[in-house]
Amino acid sequence: MRARRPRSQGVSYNFHYRRETTGDEPLISAAGFPGLFSWRPGGKLYAVKSFGRATRLLQRRLGSRIVLTDDAALDEASFDSAKIPFRPEAVVRARNEADIAVMLELANAHRVPVTTRGRGTTLTGAATPVRGGWVLDTLALNAITIDGESGMAHVQAGAKVADIQRAAEAKGWFYPPDPSSKEYCTIGGNIACNAGGMHGGKYGVTRDFVIALRGFLPTGELVEWGTATKKFSAGFNLRDLWIGSEGMLGVITGAVLKLIPQPAERWTLLTSFRNETHALRSALALFRLRVQPAICEFLDRGSVMCAERATGKVVFPGQSGRPVILLELAGSKLEVREQRATLLAWAKEHAVAHQAARNRGEAEQLWSVRRKCSGAMFELGDAKLNEDVVLPMRNYVRFALFLAKLSRDSGLHIPTFGHLADGNLHVNIMYHKADPAECRAAEKAVQRLMETVVTLGGAISGEHGIGLAKTPFLRLQHSPAQVRAMKAVKDALDPRGILNPGKMFERFEVWKYPRLQVKLPWDHK
Amino acid sequence: MRARRPRSQGVSYNFHYRRETTGDEPLISAAGFPGLFSWRPGGKLYAVKSFGRATRLLQRRLGSRIVLTDDAALDEASFDSAKIPFRPEAVVRARNEADIAVMLELANAHRVPVTTRGRGTTLTGAATPVRGGWVLDTLALNAITIDGESGMAHVQAGAKVADIQRAAEAKGWFYPPDPSSKEYCTIGGNIACNAGGMHGGKYGVTRDFVIALRGFLPTGELVEWGTATKKFSAGFNLRDLWIGSEGMLGVITGAVLKLIPQPAERWTLLTSFRNETHALRSALALFRLRVQPAICEFLDRGSVMCAERATGKVVFPGQSGRPVILLELAGSKLEVREQRATLLAWAKEHAVAHQAARNRGEAEQLWSVRRKCSGAMFELGDAKLNEDVVLPMRNYVRFALFLAKLSRDSGLHIPTFGHLADGNLHVNIMYHKADPAECRAAEKAVQRLMETVVTLGGAISGEHGIGLAKTPFLRLQHSPAQVRAMKAVKDALDPRGILNPGKMFERFEVWKYPRLQVKLPWDHK
Repeated sequence: MRARRPRSQGVSYNFHYRRETTGDEPLISAAGFPGLFSWRPGGKLYAVKSFGRATRLLQRRLGSRIVLTDDAALDEASFDSAKIPFRPEAVVRARNEADIAVMLELANAHRVPVTTRGRGTTLTGAATPVRGGWVLDTLALNAITIDGESGMAHVQAGAKVADIQRAAEAKGWFYPPDPSSKEYCTIGGNIACNAGGMHGGKYGVTRDFVIALRGFLPTGELVEWGTATKKFSAGFNLRDLWIGSEGMLGVITGAVLKLIPQPAERWTLLTSFRNETHALRSALALFRLRVQPAICEFLDRGSVMCAERATGKVVFPGQSGRPVILLELAGSKLEVREQRATLLAWAKEHAVAHQAARNRGEAEQLWSVRRKCSGAMFELGDAKLNEDVVLPMRNYVRFALFLAKLSRDSGLHIPTFGHLADGNLHVNIMYHKADPAECRAAEKAVQRLMETVVTLGGAISGEHGIGLAKTPFLRLQHSPAQVRAMKAVKDALDPRGILNPGKMFERFEVWKYPRLQVKLPWDHK
Repeated sequence: MRARRPRSQGVSYNFHYRRETTGDEPLISAAGFPGLFSWRPGGKLYAVKSFGRATRLLQRRLGSRIVLTDDAALDEASFDSAKIPFRPEAVVRARNEADIAVMLELANAHRVPVTTRGRGTTLTGAATPVRGGWVLDTLALNAITIDGESGMAHVQAGAKVADIQRAAEAKGWFYPPDPSSKEYCTIGGNIACNAGGMHGGKYGVTRDFVIALRGFLPTGELVEWGTATKKFSAGFNLRDLWIGSEGMLGVITGAVLKLIPQPAERWTLLTSFRNETHALRSALALFRLRVQPAICEFLDRGSVMCAERATGKVVFPGQSGRPVILLELAGSKLEVREQRATLLAWAKEHAVAHQAARNRGEAEQLWSVRRKCSGAMFELGDAKLNEDVVLPMRNYVRFALFLAKLSRDSGLHIPTFGHLADGNLHVNIMYHKADPAECRAAEKAVQRLMETVVTLGGAISGEHGIGLAKTPFLRLQHSPAQVRAMKAVKDALDPRGILNPGKMFERFEVWKYPRLQVKLPWDHK
């Protein structure tokens, strides 16, 4: 089926990225990709099965303005933020559910792989069409309706998360999940990977705000899971099974989201600490006070230094190079006033220094530094293994000590930042891909990292999902019985195996693949 | 397989209920049940398949103190709060997970039905061993450990919900879900039916507080879904698939629950209204003010009258017989003070009368009246079809008008109360079972009720689940494709069909079955 082609692996991409000048959302375009081929998990090239007849049938049914097969469209859809391209055979720019129904009917009949895609901001490769076939582009399904009475948003899968937030805010409501790519990413993608963000500790993640879902079973039948009501306990919960299933169990076309009242007041406090363990111990002391900050972001020294180098600004004047915790309270005026006093008393006792933002402008400046630290890390290496692990609070300090040792042992920079209120830490293993010793060290380090996370009672992913990037570690997290149960569910719902094949269960070592040298609009910095 | 036995349906139960005098949890005991038989869904008697050999093997493996086969144990396990008895062949009082593993191994080998049971407070019959076989009693697995640092409770399935709440409270934490049977029901049962309670509107339901689950796949393999961390996005979400799956997809043995800070202040307000539509319109006006009461309970005139007759007290002096809304604010002192002003202004504008509880004692008295209204309804008939439907807020008034018409058309009392902040209304169709005309009217009324609920965009169950009682309506809620997908998941995870067979998907008309005349400790009144 998958005949090898005599092709060298040292492919060079003649890749052009251009920003569209119309509208506020830059589009990606590319040209000059190598043709219809892919890699075997072992690292060897192989030709992806061709579905020429099915693609021609699909084009006849939906037209060539919907079913695109030109180089630009295929190149653009061949990769996501993991930047490892696999070329699809067609891109289906669905206008509506009817288009998707037609596509799924043919995909099932001809066993064509279908990879659903929003904006492609995923860092795990979950939207990469690793088995070729068709990419379903959902960006045209982007309607947003706010039900101000019930506090719900009715959205289509392609709606942008920041647009949903703005639409909700305009009616006095708040949609808290806020992945850092929120100005680009779609709610469909957020649901598919159960995205989080900085607000997770207090408000929860995407899953906590999904009331109902609508979409297609892999077999092509339109279904609805849940009703637009706040309670539902009728039948098996396939809604939540879809959430976080990364496009493998269904095609999400729409959702009803829960909104909460917009907080009247916000207040931001920056605190600095002697070192990482001091910062983490202090955070634990804060949580013992039962204060629930809306945001509680930790930046270790490496992250602070990267942010400072990238922005040319000092994160905390007089505290340069020290780890910081950036906090935000949100709620009613009185609630924030009450918690502010507690927080200031805590900062006085625990932090080396603290500084409150005097106004929203100052607060925004602090947050913009935080958002830049991830992109700024490329000062430390041209390649990054970006892991969004989760640790139980009781093991924060132990984990910080482990990271210091891991950095020493591997000789690599491993700047780390993350959301302390929910234990979701972003560990960034930086290396130079031209240096074989560093590549090996990074590969070894990520393995040790994941083993340690699981040993400490944590999770290998908190908000990114598995996709391709975390597949080597799935079995650290899940026992053979657990993986078998997941596969049984997959086979039951997708008997022809068409939805996003090659993900989750098959080992894929991202560090072995060359990555496109392309800057995406949502890349930090 | 299921040979009919020549037996009349007019069985009379010589049922003895006794309260154990030791400990605070009365146990149920019974004697004199008819033997090993059951009804066909059509209403005819049939003999349940016997698993004598498997039962003897199980008894040999675990001993006869764990595997009970005496009449008292079998009778006690033959029914839950639906009070329709089906006799099992053995009751397995598991001491630990190892016992359950042995039981599941044999159950799979011999295809013995297994019905998992906590306290049996379910109103839907979900814990009734409708296909005979074995009942797994989880009450001995009742450990509770509070992790005060992380705000989590580590519990075993048989732990009592009120005990979890008290243990959390002792460490300054709060576990909000509070089904009215919380002094009896187990967390395992709560998770199995995704129980709710009065706090749902503000805090959410059981699902919103489950961080991780532990237990057995139907095939007998021990698994863990999720870690004791606040974020987890690694692999398909079988945790949430288990929640609400009513013992059909796995045996839950333990859970990690999320706790939230204990509210420092509570404040209770009773309001009365001219009529139901006036009350419901006023509630909608309250929600438009973005006030989130922790509790917002509605009692229609019928419910108020029942409560008054049962308690001999007037719910709201001077307002006798008027529908009421009972509200509670909870939060920090300042937060409650802020919302109290808004709430009082709202009450002055909208309610006929309002009255704040001056202290916790007065508040408790108001809540005790609310809790009594359900049991008090047996003044209006000796049989009740108790439905926990959910309506979207925009259709509250239309639904109230429908209920009034349904009561007129059917000639039955249909007192209704429920949780307005999440649309979960408890509709109680009261009738006399000796009156064939009333029985037919009730059967017709429940069908019209469910059809209307779905037409109005609601859910047939918000917190009770399907069990046996809601099976005739599952297909009103779910399309054939949705039901097929659920069944496919069931077959994939439980290939031998041993876990709680006969539930959810097979039509069972509870109103056709005689119910045990037994008063259970958690029956209201």
